[in-house]
Amino acid sequence: MMTALDSPPLGLVLDDIVRSHRPRTEAGSVPANIPHLQSPPFDRFGIAVATTSGEVFSSGDAGLPFSIQSISKVFTLAMALSADDSGSLWSRVLREPSGTSFNSLVQLEVEHGVPRNPFINSGALVVTDHLMERSPDAAAQVLRFLNGQVGQPGPFIDEIAARSELSSSSRNLALAHFLKEFGNLRRPAQAVVENYVRQCSIMMTCVEVAKAGLFLAQDGRGAQGAVISRSEAKRIGSIMLTCGMYDAAGEFAYRVGLPGKSGVGGGILAIVPGECAICVWSPRLDSKGNSLAGTAALADLSDRTGWSIF
Amino acid sequence: MMTALDSPPLGLVLDDIVRSHRPRTEAGSVPANIPHLQSPPFDRFGIAVATTSGEVFSSGDAGLPFSIQSISKVFTLAMALSADDSGSLWSRVLREPSGTSFNSLVQLEVEHGVPRNPFINSGALVVTDHLMERSPDAAAQVLRFLNGQVGQPGPFIDEIAARSELSSSSRNLALAHFLKEFGNLRRPAQAVVENYVRQCSIMMTCVEVAKAGLFLAQDGRGAQGAVISRSEAKRIGSIMLTCGMYDAAGEFAYRVGLPGKSGVGGGILAIVPGECAICVWSPRLDSKGNSLAGTAALADLSDRTGWSIF
Amino acid sequence: MMTALDSPPLGLVLDDIVRSHRPRTEAGSVPANIPHLQSPPFDRFGIAVATTSGEVFSSGDAGLPFSIQSISKVFTLAMALSADDSGSLWSRVLREPSGTSFNSLVQLEVEHGVPRNPFINSGALVVTDHLMERSPDAAAQVLRFLNGQVGQPGPFIDEIAARSELSSSSRNLALAHFLKEFGNLRRPAQAVVENYVRQCSIMMTCVEVAKAGLFLAQDGRGAQGAVISRSEAKRIGSIMLTCGMYDAAGEFAYRVGLPGKSGVGGGILAIVPGECAICVWSPRLDSKGNSLAGTAALADLSDRTGWSIF
Amino acid sequence: MMTALDSPPLGLVLDDIVRSHRPRTEAGSVPANIPHLQSPPFDRFGIAVATTSGEVFSSGDAGLPFSIQSISKVFTLAMALSADDSGSLWSRVLREPSGTSFNSLVQLEVEHGVPRNPFINSGALVVTDHLMERSPDAAAQVLRFLNGQVGQPGPFIDEIAARSELSSSSRNLALAHFLKEFGNLRRPAQAVVENYVRQCSIMMTCVEVAKAGLFLAQDGRGAQGAVISRSEAKRIGSIMLTCGMYDAAGEFAYRVGLPGKSGVGGGILAIVPGECAICVWSPRLDSKGNSLAGTAALADLSDRTGWSIF
Repeated sequence: MMTALDSPPLGLVLDDIVRSHRPRTEAGSVPANIPHLQSPPFDRFGIAVATTSGEVFSSGDAGLPFSIQSISKVFTLAMALSADDSGSLWSRVLREPSGTSFNSLVQLEVEHGVPRNPFINSGALVVTDHLMERSPDAAAQVLRFLNGQVGQPGPFIDEIAARSELSSSSRNLALAHFLKEFGNLRRPAQAVVENYVRQCSIMMTCVEVAKAGLFLAQDGRGAQGAVISRSEAKRIGSIMLTCGMYDAAGEFAYRVGLPGKSGVGGGILAIVPGECAICVWSPRLDSKGNSLAGTAALADLSDRTGWSIF
Repeated sequence: MMTALDSPPLGLVLDDIVRSHRPRTEAGSVPANIPHLQSPPFDRFGIAVATTSGEVFSSGDAGLPFSIQSISKVFTLAMALSADDSGSLWSRVLREPSGTSFNSLVQLEVEHGVPRNPFINSGALVVTDHLMERSPDAAAQVLRFLNGQVGQPGPFIDEIAARSELSSSSRNLALAHFLKEFGNLRRPAQAVVENYVRQCSIMMTCVEVAKAGLFLAQDGRGAQGAVISRSEAKRIGSIMLTCGMYDAAGEFAYRVGLPGKSGVGGGILAIVPGECAICVWSPRLDSKGNSLAGTAALADLSDRTGWSIF
Repeated sequence: MMTALDSPPLGLVLDDIVRSHRPRTEAGSVPANIPHLQSPPFDRFGIAVATTSGEVFSSGDAGLPFSIQSISKVFTLAMALSADDSGSLWSRVLREPSGTSFNSLVQLEVEHGVPRNPFINSGALVVTDHLMERSPDAAAQVLRFLNGQVGQPGPFIDEIAARSELSSSSRNLALAHFLKEFGNLRRPAQAVVENYVRQCSIMMTCVEVAKAGLFLAQDGRGAQGAVISRSEAKRIGSIMLTCGMYDAAGEFAYRVGLPGKSGVGGGILAIVPGECAICVWSPRLDSKGNSLAGTAALADLSDRTGWSIF
Repeated sequence: MMTALDSPPLGLVLDDIVRSHRPRTEAGSVPANIPHLQSPPFDRFGIAVATTSGEVFSSGDAGLPFSIQSISKVFTLAMALSADDSGSLWSRVLREPSGTSFNSLVQLEVEHGVPRNPFINSGALVVTDHLMERSPDAAAQVLRFLNGQVGQPGPFIDEIAARSELSSSSRNLALAHFLKEFGNLRRPAQAVVENYVRQCSIMMTCVEVAKAGLFLAQDGRGAQGAVISRSEAKRIGSIMLTCGMYDAAGEFAYRVGLPGKSGVGGGILAIVPGECAICVWSPRLDSKGNSLAGTAALADLSDRTGWSIF
């Protein structure tokens, strides 16, 4: 793997990435069923890189908070694993890509209630349920962890957005009841979905997400010590690579070559093992639900810096 | 990424791997529908590593030829890409994991005849069809390429095995006709399946497979110069990681952390970018169709050497 | 179609049917997830026939109340249609067989929330939701209708069984939330499922079910006048024939040749247009969820009497 | 069931049906992949009724030959059953509706190569394979049978159309190879598909189809004696009702209320047990592949005459 040593200074590269990729015209879509994700103007674009040497570079709207949505699944998975002394989580959820997105329900049925991986919604509900064993307010746990990595004032839950999103969470409620039918949910379906939605409604800036994700680039060590073991950090990376971008994981691996996790709020967290964590944000999405400009920017950044795990 | 520098000498490591992983009792299965794959004794086990510095290490039955089966898909893909000046291959096949194995036919139908990736059978048939544009005897092209990488006497097609396998290729014929129905096969279905089966019937030793795959670890440069570009080499690596192990790609990425491609002959080719190509062979398979002892050996080797892309 | 004129007297035929088909040894299964359906002894067997000429014949345990379960779907459909002046019900649910049972969720997704027919669970939830427009207590409506057809003391809701069944209704809750996601449920998911489960928990005897179903054999006219039009009666018959026996509709049409609707309580209602309504009950089920002895008895009765619509 | 006794004379009714239903403007579609089915002008419309009392009524283009296509499946099924002394056919094909049309391949895989019913393509290939046991030229057998029912000059195979259709039969070849994979095809895939396509290419007039189908309305007795038993005749009727109209069987049963079998040539054969066989033909199809004007005409005829099995 190349390092960034031979490249131009990273700050300048990021500035140039912002110039090249900030949307000039409206393209892409926003989630139809989550009203508050429709507010950010289409030309918002930010990028931040937190390095293992302790530096943080950023450009564009990297200081604006956005809804992290499914990026939260990386953090809840790490927390669930860190608390999973018995290793029982992996008997409740698999680690395989899910194929086409519409399969989520099909495969849940075919696989008798064991979700394909922790990053599809059904899998994330199981992870949240698992996390609730330790303390029922799983969202508060996640928030506490993020604040520990990032410092004050830092991440916060947009409770109004959460309540609004909860009122249109019929599909997640369906998934939760379906998991319950198969005996793979311990807490009440409604409570698990509430916790899940509140985690998704956490607001963070690109800088904060990059800093919070840095432990994945440095063998599991975060701002306040080990979050997870080195081996677990590598393994979360492998799950991000194979399952992190909805039904575009293969395409993202092909174009960007880095473990990544996206959210329908338009953010993407990508990891360069041993080097840095990257967060890009731009709110308009492609047909697979990943940030349109964000994905293009990461492919460009990967080409310019040689950052790729392959 | 760690290098092997601090480890004990690689030859000794491989000897120990053979001692630990060569099967002592019969476990796993062999493909029911391919008679000649049932002949190798269950305790055959070989491993070889070809490094970018030009060395080759091996142990166990690394000099016995075995049927490479689907490992051939990596080589035909590389050859098709090297000849694909127009870039048209990627309009005929996607680059996404396929989800559960039974989906191959379903997804082919749902996706209107565009296979999910070049490593499932339907995708490999399209790649072979693509390769036949250059010369109708695609299997001979592949063999010529492999001999160029490996030297004499080298790889050969087991024509008797190929004929036998062809007589039980009803599923592949079904896939080929189905692709034709969708206009995604140019040559006659029968001819494409014949070429496909003959490629799969190539016999190679672990040492030969490791040497033949080395170009993927060194930016596309093989024994006789560039096979594909550096960027294409990286991208084949990403497809191997996300799609190379049938429906166990996620699990293999999680346990081994390397791009790999397996075949139902019991062989696995794995790539450590910038370092080496590894081939392990042991004929008994797990429930997903991957070598049982081979997968365990690669996980062990990855732990001992620190070889992992994550 | 033959009439019963040339047969031996119907009462004697029914006695003989009971002798031949009452189970002597335990075979078949009971629903694992509904405790109260596991109580009836395996050798319970009753049969009743209510004719359009006003007679009622019965034999065996035809006077014992059993849980009608999905037989209730015929009655709720008739009531929803009788109140559906705008004809809007058929825009919310189709009238096609559903293929394999596992498809219920798949097809709901593929068909964008429009259930395949009113007799699969998702379709029945829509019918119940539709019925709740008229009065929120849909189960009470159904019970009132049934008592009107059958007289006192008559059918009653086993409220304890309903509460128990509701506590294991995760799959139905999942379906209801999923319908809501697609905008095909107006009332709250929980309320619809409660009404649905209470309808299924109605207790009736064979004699009562046969009398209650008689309107379907006599052009829609029930004990207290027209329930539905002649044309609607015929059409409910066609839906029973194509969709009434879960994934064994074709087999039942083949063996019995009559429109029928079964329930996992072990009851089956069958209609001989212009002649009679038949109810048979025996609690043990075959692998498709239909009464084992009940289906065999109806096939036998159809052979003996010539009753068949084909 | 009503008889036609109280209706106006049947000839006048058919004339009126032709006046009302012959298409005046172009609507509906023709099969894109079968060129010769695109030739008949959109306003062709014929109807014929052959009664059990020996009369034949007809109107419109009832004397023009058209391609019977899948209507042939009724005749091949009857012939296969008449020769199936061992009853082995029903171990190779089920009798259940197939759900959505796209499922044919899926369900074939899920059900391990046993087609859902004899009227979907995979099932009809198995029936043809079964018929080829008696004599390899199954199409000639079918033609001989039809000529025996109808007299000279009578039905004939359009061999040019058959050859053309065969050249675009990739999907049927795929199905045949897939059946072979599961061990459910005895003859070579190519030969079975050829026979199947030639049966589908039989040309008949409405009058001929009605006469040929009459045995199904009169307990299995055809022009030259018993074709099949009374019980088999009833059972073929039940399969027609539940599976005869592709994915619109439920809708057809609902609107028309008669066992029917359609073909993409625009013909439909319907049976009124004990009364008559009806054939209607109009070449333009609805979205499910059934004759648009033909289905409407049968619904109208059923309303006017009271012919319905429900």
